[in-house]
Amino acid sequence: MRTSQMLEHLMEALRCLPGVGPKSAQRMAFHLLQRDRQGGLRLADALSQAMTEIGHCQTCRTFTEEDVCHICKNPKRQENGQLCVVESPADIAAVEATGQFSGRYFVLMGHLSPLDGIGPADIGLDLLDFRLQQGGITEVILATNPTVEGEATAHYIADLCQVHHVSASRIAHGVPVGGELELVDGTTLSHSLMGRQRLS
Amino acid sequence: MRTSQMLEHLMEALRCLPGVGPKSAQRMAFHLLQRDRQGGLRLADALSQAMTEIGHCQTCRTFTEEDVCHICKNPKRQENGQLCVVESPADIAAVEATGQFSGRYFVLMGHLSPLDGIGPADIGLDLLDFRLQQGGITEVILATNPTVEGEATAHYIADLCQVHHVSASRIAHGVPVGGELELVDGTTLSHSLMGRQRLS
Repeated sequence: MRTSQMLEHLMEALRCLPGVGPKSAQRMAFHLLQRDRQGGLRLADALSQAMTEIGHCQTCRTFTEEDVCHICKNPKRQENGQLCVVESPADIAAVEATGQFSGRYFVLMGHLSPLDGIGPADIGLDLLDFRLQQGGITEVILATNPTVEGEATAHYIADLCQVHHVSASRIAHGVPVGGELELVDGTTLSHSLMGRQRLS
Repeated sequence: MRTSQMLEHLMEALRCLPGVGPKSAQRMAFHLLQRDRQGGLRLADALSQAMTEIGHCQTCRTFTEEDVCHICKNPKRQENGQLCVVESPADIAAVEATGQFSGRYFVLMGHLSPLDGIGPADIGLDLLDFRLQQGGITEVILATNPTVEGEATAHYIADLCQVHHVSASRIAHGVPVGGELELVDGTTLSHSLMGRQRLS
């Protein structure tokens, strides 16, 4: 028997967060009530605002509360004509963190998966087709996940690029930096051998 | 450069939760936006309601949105005259989970700590004094944390009980069930030896 219905309800609601089980939910609820009610209220506001107002960018399909996202609005990001195709908005954050890319993005919000009924239109390829048609894009960098579905999606988009005479490239597969060779799986290692680069 | 101000704001707000750093906050925000907007909205409601409406029980000081909590309201929990004194509402959940206790609780919401300026009135001992005076309590079980401050607080309350001629007991120190003896620290082991119980 618990002491408060509302507290129960809060613990239950906290479990919608990924990686939060009953124990963490309890710890979070008590922490907020005991030490940070202001933070809890700020979180409630941020959540309800984000859940209702954040939609998708009309140009690249990433999450934004505006019609067009900050990156697509920035004219500097259009200069080099590069378009990086990723599966999810979180991937944009990962690519941005490298500081190696200054072009624009296109977010598929998923990958092709005919068995689940997810076809080209569901991952926004009609919009991508329209953007390639419009011109201004010189290279499409395919940064979908290195999974079977991600590879298939990359190949499909590469074909689309060929139709529009735009060059397409795929991010390199190989051994991760800082890892040990003996721990790398066979498929990755053979990709890494095939993709070897001349040093001298 | 991020794509959305509101998303940034949500990730920042999520970090008020204990154990949530920048990476988890990002994962949580994207998960809610992509897969569970309804859950996010429910969480927002539960949070704002809990943060504004949950106060303290007038009898035992635990968290509740009502004047008196469910446990204090239940006449069955008064029958055996036992009162378990704990440091935080989370401790009530822990004791309740054992199923071994059917009395009432009193929550200190902290412990005595003269160096931090936390005296008897700050942990509600005036209210406890009043409850002991009212009668109906036959035994006070001191379940404060097994720390220096928790011990000092337990001893202080034991003295208070003596004034009112109410018996006071302290939960047992000893080796945890399922642990290995060689891994138990010396202080715990000596407490465990001193508190040994006759088998035959």
